[in-house]
Amino acid sequence: MAQPGKVILAGTVAKGLLAEVTEGLSKLNSKPKLVGFLANEDPAAKVYADFSAKTCVENGFEFDLRKVAKEDIEDAILAANVDDSVHGIIVYYPIFPRASRQDQYIQQLVGLDKDVEGLSHKYIFNMYQNIRFLDPPTNKQKSILPCTPLAVVKVLEYLQVYHTALPYGNRLFGRTITVINRSEVVGRPLAALLANDGAKVYSVDIDGVQLFTRGKGIKNHKHEVHEQEGWTVKECLPLSDVVISGVPGNSYKIDTDLIRDGATCINFSSEKNFDATTVKEHAAFYVPAIGKVTISVLLRNLLRLVQNQEENKTKAS
Amino acid sequence: MAQPGKVILAGTVAKGLLAEVTEGLSKLNSKPKLVGFLANEDPAAKVYADFSAKTCVENGFEFDLRKVAKEDIEDAILAANVDDSVHGIIVYYPIFPRASRQDQYIQQLVGLDKDVEGLSHKYIFNMYQNIRFLDPPTNKQKSILPCTPLAVVKVLEYLQVYHTALPYGNRLFGRTITVINRSEVVGRPLAALLANDGAKVYSVDIDGVQLFTRGKGIKNHKHEVHEQEGWTVKECLPLSDVVISGVPGNSYKIDTDLIRDGATCINFSSEKNFDATTVKEHAAFYVPAIGKVTISVLLRNLLRLVQNQEENKTKAS
Repeated sequence: MAQPGKVILAGTVAKGLLAEVTEGLSKLNSKPKLVGFLANEDPAAKVYADFSAKTCVENGFEFDLRKVAKEDIEDAILAANVDDSVHGIIVYYPIFPRASRQDQYIQQLVGLDKDVEGLSHKYIFNMYQNIRFLDPPTNKQKSILPCTPLAVVKVLEYLQVYHTALPYGNRLFGRTITVINRSEVVGRPLAALLANDGAKVYSVDIDGVQLFTRGKGIKNHKHEVHEQEGWTVKECLPLSDVVISGVPGNSYKIDTDLIRDGATCINFSSEKNFDATTVKEHAAFYVPAIGKVTISVLLRNLLRLVQNQEENKTKAS
Repeated sequence: MAQPGKVILAGTVAKGLLAEVTEGLSKLNSKPKLVGFLANEDPAAKVYADFSAKTCVENGFEFDLRKVAKEDIEDAILAANVDDSVHGIIVYYPIFPRASRQDQYIQQLVGLDKDVEGLSHKYIFNMYQNIRFLDPPTNKQKSILPCTPLAVVKVLEYLQVYHTALPYGNRLFGRTITVINRSEVVGRPLAALLANDGAKVYSVDIDGVQLFTRGKGIKNHKHEVHEQEGWTVKECLPLSDVVISGVPGNSYKIDTDLIRDGATCINFSSEKNFDATTVKEHAAFYVPAIGKVTISVLLRNLLRLVQNQEENKTKAS
C-alpha cells in the first residue's frame, strides 16, 4: 500500500525558531537567566528539567535548576519574582495531588513579567480574548502565549497551513481543524488560538464536540463556541484539513481511515495517538511529537519577557 | 448514656453577623446590588441561588439572578465587572466539567472589586500570606476572605474559641484544631487562616496529615506547614480542642469515640460527618451545619466591597 505521507520531525521545525531566538539574543546586553523549580520526585519532570537546561545553555541562556521542598515552593517563587538577576521562571508540575488544585494556586504566584510558560491568568485571558499586547494602545509589549499551544501554531506555520498572504490575525481563514483534547492546559487554549486566527475548529473531548469559530463584530474578533449536539470525532475527521491530538495514556488511537487525503496530522500527546504507519496512507504531513518545538517556544517566550522587562525599564527611566 | 453536648444552630450565629451588616448598611447612601450568575441546570445551585436572593432581600440588599448560557458566562461577567450599578458578583458552580478546570478560569474573571466570594487569586494569596489589607500601609481597605472558611472562623468566635483578651491576630494561641478536608476551596484556606490566627492545626485528607502552625520571625507571621509522617485522623482527634469536618459524600463518619471531652465539633459538609447522637457524648458544642453563617458572611463581604469601592472613589476624587 502506498504511504505518500511525509514525517516532519519537531527538531526540523525548532531549528528556525532557535535561529530567530539567537538573533534576538544577540541584541541584548546580558545573558538572560531562566530559573526552574523542581519540587517533586517525578522522573519525567526531572528529564524535562534536564532537557530545558541543555537547550537553554546550548542556545546562550543561563539555566538554574532549584530543587525545593514542596512546603517551600511558595516562598521560593516569591523570592525569584523580586530577584533582578532572574529573567524567567518555570515550575515543574505536578507538585501537589491533582485533585487538591493547589498547583493552580502555585501557578498564579509566578510574577507576570517572569512567567515564561504563559500560565498567568492575565496571559490566558488575553489569549482567549484575542488581545495580543500587554500595553495597548502602545503595543510594544507582546502578551505571552502558553508554550504547547504556541508550539502547535509554530508547526502549522512551518507547514504553511497559515496563509502568509492573508492579513495577520486571519491566516487560518478557510481551514478546518480538529483538536482532540479540551484540557484547560492545552486543548481549549489551542482551539481558541486557532479560531482567533480564522480557522473553523472542532474541539473534541469525552463530553462531546464544540465548534470554535472566529467571532464577528466583536472588538477583538474573539472566538465563539457552539455545542455540536450528537457529534463525535467520527463526524469531525473527514471534514478536517488538520487533525491535532493530545490524548494522554496509550489506549486512545485515532481511526486513521477517517482522515482526509492530504491532511496534516500532529500529535502532542506523550503517547502515539496516530498509528505511525496507517496515518501516512492519508496524511500529507505527520508530526509525531512536538517537544523540541515546545522548548524552543519556551526560549522565545523568555526572550520576549526580557524584551518586555527592558521596555518597562525604559518607560520607568 | 449522658449526652452533655449542646447543639448550636447556624441561624443563631448568623443573627449577630446580620445585625452587624444591617448596621453597616444603614451608613451607606445606596442599596448595594449583588448579581448572581446561574449557568448550569444543577438543582442544588438553584436552591442556593434562591436562598441567597431571599437573604439578600430580607437584609436590605438588592439581588439580581441572571441565567446565562454556558458559552455566554465569560462575556456576562466582564459586562457586570464594568457596570457601576453592580456592587458584587457571585457565580454558581459547577458550570463546566470539573476535570477541565475551566471553572477556575471563570472564577478569575470576576473583578477584584466585585468578588464577593473572595476567590480571586489576590484575595487567596493575601489570606495565605496573612496580609489583611489591600492598601498597605494605609490599611483602609480590607482584603476579602473566602466565605466558607470565614464562616467557620465566625462560628469559632461565637463559641469563644477565639480568646478575645489576646491581641488581634493571635487569638487562637494554645488551641489545637483538626480540619478534615484539604481542598483548595475550603480545607486548606481554613487550616491556613486558623494557623495564621495562632492555632496548631492538623489538616487531614486522604493523602495524610499536615501540621499548620503560625510561622515565627516572618514579616506577616504567615503559617508554616509540615508533613506529619505516618499520622492519620486517629492521632489528631484526641489532641484537638476543635474538630472541623467537610468530607463530601455520606460514606465518611468520624469515630466520635476519639473526640476529647469538651471539644467543639463543626460540620461544613452537606452530609453529616459526625453522628448527631454520639458526638454529643464528648463534644461540648456541636454545630451540624454552617450554611446560614456562610450566607451572612457573603453579605458581610458585599458590604466590605461597597466600603472599598467608596474608599476608592474618595481617593480618585
